[in-house]
Amino acid sequence: MNVYAVLMAGGVGTRFWPRSRRKTPKQVLNIVDDSTMIQATYARLSGLAPDENILIVTNPEQKEIIAEQLPRLGDQNFILEPFGRNTAPCIGLAALHIAREDPDAVMVVLPADHVVAKVKEYQTVLKLAIEYAAEHEALVTLGITPNEPATGYGYIQAGEVATRKGKYRVHKVKTFAEKPNLETALRFLDSGDFYWNSGMFIWRASTILKEIEEKLPDVFEKLELVKAAVGTPKYEAVLEKSYRALKSISIDIGVMQRASHVYVIPADIGWNDVGSWETVYEISDKDKHRNAGQFQQLINIDSKKCYVYSPDKVVALVGVEDLVVVDTGDALLICRRSHAQQVKDAVEVLVKKGQERYL
Amino acid sequence: MNVYAVLMAGGVGTRFWPRSRRKTPKQVLNIVDDSTMIQATYARLSGLAPDENILIVTNPEQKEIIAEQLPRLGDQNFILEPFGRNTAPCIGLAALHIAREDPDAVMVVLPADHVVAKVKEYQTVLKLAIEYAAEHEALVTLGITPNEPATGYGYIQAGEVATRKGKYRVHKVKTFAEKPNLETALRFLDSGDFYWNSGMFIWRASTILKEIEEKLPDVFEKLELVKAAVGTPKYEAVLEKSYRALKSISIDIGVMQRASHVYVIPADIGWNDVGSWETVYEISDKDKHRNAGQFQQLINIDSKKCYVYSPDKVVALVGVEDLVVVDTGDALLICRRSHAQQVKDAVEVLVKKGQERYL
Repeated sequence: MNVYAVLMAGGVGTRFWPRSRRKTPKQVLNIVDDSTMIQATYARLSGLAPDENILIVTNPEQKEIIAEQLPRLGDQNFILEPFGRNTAPCIGLAALHIAREDPDAVMVVLPADHVVAKVKEYQTVLKLAIEYAAEHEALVTLGITPNEPATGYGYIQAGEVATRKGKYRVHKVKTFAEKPNLETALRFLDSGDFYWNSGMFIWRASTILKEIEEKLPDVFEKLELVKAAVGTPKYEAVLEKSYRALKSISIDIGVMQRASHVYVIPADIGWNDVGSWETVYEISDKDKHRNAGQFQQLINIDSKKCYVYSPDKVVALVGVEDLVVVDTGDALLICRRSHAQQVKDAVEVLVKKGQERYL
Repeated sequence: MNVYAVLMAGGVGTRFWPRSRRKTPKQVLNIVDDSTMIQATYARLSGLAPDENILIVTNPEQKEIIAEQLPRLGDQNFILEPFGRNTAPCIGLAALHIAREDPDAVMVVLPADHVVAKVKEYQTVLKLAIEYAAEHEALVTLGITPNEPATGYGYIQAGEVATRKGKYRVHKVKTFAEKPNLETALRFLDSGDFYWNSGMFIWRASTILKEIEEKLPDVFEKLELVKAAVGTPKYEAVLEKSYRALKSISIDIGVMQRASHVYVIPADIGWNDVGSWETVYEISDKDKHRNAGQFQQLINIDSKKCYVYSPDKVVALVGVEDLVVVDTGDALLICRRSHAQQVKDAVEVLVKKGQERYL
């Protein structure tokens, strides 16, 4: 079985400002670990796909730092998008390149900025997904077993069991559900057949290209133009022109929600999409005062439940709790943990003021 | 009348960490103003004492920066203590030097790190104090008219009126009271005859030296040794040896609380001893969200009532209130405003750890 891994690494991650910037987005930061998130994603693929089959889809601005962080990969491992158009064009472009080598190859599509705590389980589930996708020409996705009524994720409702292997099951997908309100999320959790949409997909290159041709003919048409230009001096210009003509569309909305042969494998893999500084706090190791973070030295006077990032300074917390403090060379964020989603509003202010150097 | 001003400028001000350090204590910082506090204290003396009669009592560590900040003064304006022994030795040493020139001169003793908003009123009250001290060989102090039941100051109870001049009165002092609890402070405020102890004293050099001789004979004996060494190569060594032999003692406890001829002039001069970052916040101009401070740029997302010092960075506050944020080159303080007094506990931790570079 020829297996490719496609790491989608084009996001900007404004919610991790001031650490995340346009040139150093979330996936290249060591937010939860000594490794950066893309390094961890790459490391988890060990044994699943050989280096030459690992493709990083990113943009020219981020390529250099990713290449530095993944020294075993080279130019041939990168697919550059001129700019982001959401996941459908990104995945279509990767599928196009893979299909030129081997249309029957299975591609594992992965976000490069998620955490997976249970790596062995993750690999086992992915192997099952690869087998199933290859054998049945299926669109397979991983559904994360929910442990709380999260309102920040989309959900997948599992239908009848298509096959079992040991303790694992492959289900036909019944429906995709958008991010629910709390009441609905509680109902989903109670029902036992809803899973978090992880954004991880497994299918043959030929399978997804056929789906795109059928369901997103505009996208397919542009991809065909790009395909014809591969290996020619016109490639970049054709790619840019094609992308410019495309609308942003996700693979979920464009393909998954409208396709048959869509399957979900329930996966209990310690997954987290690390959506904000609050999530980083939650998954970090804490001291006895429930403080966490990455810092040179923390002086704690009557303070608790704070997250502190400050690599170079001594930081003193006096009588505070539930704060996120992120100190970088040129910017300082002080945020109530419960307001971590609003960090992107601060970035929005900088965008409106045109203060490029902080973006 | 020959008038000297003695600026006591030896304090370390740990409560303004991380801005205040051993080499840059509170009095040399521009905490509430463009001027530093010692510059403002000096400026307020305009017309009261000529430059050659202004004496700065400080330690060798701080002399250089004070001299830079007060360029009209020279070496002859400095009296150096080898180290601090509280106010009694400090004042005795200054009195000794003044008495060598003119024992009858009146000396105005002033902390160098307080705020006085009403400068004209201050000068009028000081002139009255100087007259009264000279004429009656009295120990005169300014009592600040209290506008709240403060528990952070000592109080002076005014007794019978000794003299009046326009709207001003000189009272005999009835008692000195230590920092009260809130209940007692409320009683003081209600009574109408209690004033805050400002630590500002006015007397002839000869008067205070006579009092020290009588009430603090140990201190007087050492001062006599120092006096004998003035102008000789042994001066510094004798001074250091004498200081080493002295115990720390305040002029309040050592002299004022035990002397007769002690007088207080009620003074409504917009005085504040600026005891903590919370006080700095209180006396600062605020924006419409009640935020204040000194910063390059503040991004405010749902935040209010914060004080921010960060001269070089963009600072984003997200969903926080009632915080003090002080960002310096090597240290960062995040403090609940109500806990500003505990900043000194953070400094204490650094002292215990022996981390000199942050002190």
